[in-house]
Amino acid sequence: MAVFSLHTQLAADTSLIGRLSGCQLLLMNDARYPWLILVPEQDGLRELHELNDKAFHAVTLAIKSLSTSLQTLTAAPKMNVAALGNLVPQLHIHIIARRHDDAAWPGPVWGVGAAEPYSDDERLVLLATLREQLDLDAA
Amino acid sequence: MAVFSLHTQLAADTSLIGRLSGCQLLLMNDARYPWLILVPEQDGLRELHELNDKAFHAVTLAIKSLSTSLQTLTAAPKMNVAALGNLVPQLHIHIIARRHDDAAWPGPVWGVGAAEPYSDDERLVLLATLREQLDLDAA
Repeated sequence: MAVFSLHTQLAADTSLIGRLSGCQLLLMNDARYPWLILVPEQDGLRELHELNDKAFHAVTLAIKSLSTSLQTLTAAPKMNVAALGNLVPQLHIHIIARRHDDAAWPGPVWGVGAAEPYSDDERLVLLATLREQLDLDAA
Repeated sequence: MAVFSLHTQLAADTSLIGRLSGCQLLLMNDARYPWLILVPEQDGLRELHELNDKAFHAVTLAIKSLSTSLQTLTAAPKMNVAALGNLVPQLHIHIIARRHDDAAWPGPVWGVGAAEPYSDDERLVLLATLREQLDLDAA
């Protein structure tokens, strides 16, 4: 079995929150939006439909759970869920809480302006909150 | 049970291909991209995670099947799958075949330029092909 390694761009742009359903759950380091990224830990995947039926079921249930929880946590009026991968080919699913006054509303977030990184303190507090509130595998 | 009605913007922008898994399957009338839209026929839904577990399973399996089939039919190097709904609140899922030379590549398609409608002949031929090739409910 091939060893999974996270794409260098995803590794550079995110922090690991934890694991669930055979995936790494990442926090995008962009304070403009509460933005999770779910990455199935299988090398070579590019498309959501390439997951076998069992993994697809697990990953989509994780998406449902995370989208529900992130909307509750943030009280966001809208969630955006997407698997694009035009620039970073490794399969990854975006789960983003949107607000009517955020930097890209009502457009999509990708390619809009520059990321605004969290401060170290903000990021550590947010990661701790997410690890506590989201339904992750035990560390 | 409330009567489902398709959002007027979706009705204006698309043609009905057929039905599967409790959804309407629509063709976006934009010849720049092979672009399907799946709309669960339940009034009042805004988020993917609002589907109950049974409907969520059916809808996500339909997404998997349609994404696989559309990529095969179009030989597209990349698929984009997304539930956004920032402008049109009725829950709808985009399944889009992307090419490296399409009008928005490598960005997302939403909000880029103006749709280029199919001619009536093109549209009828494409709808017939999709009805034949996709795994839809019997009409």
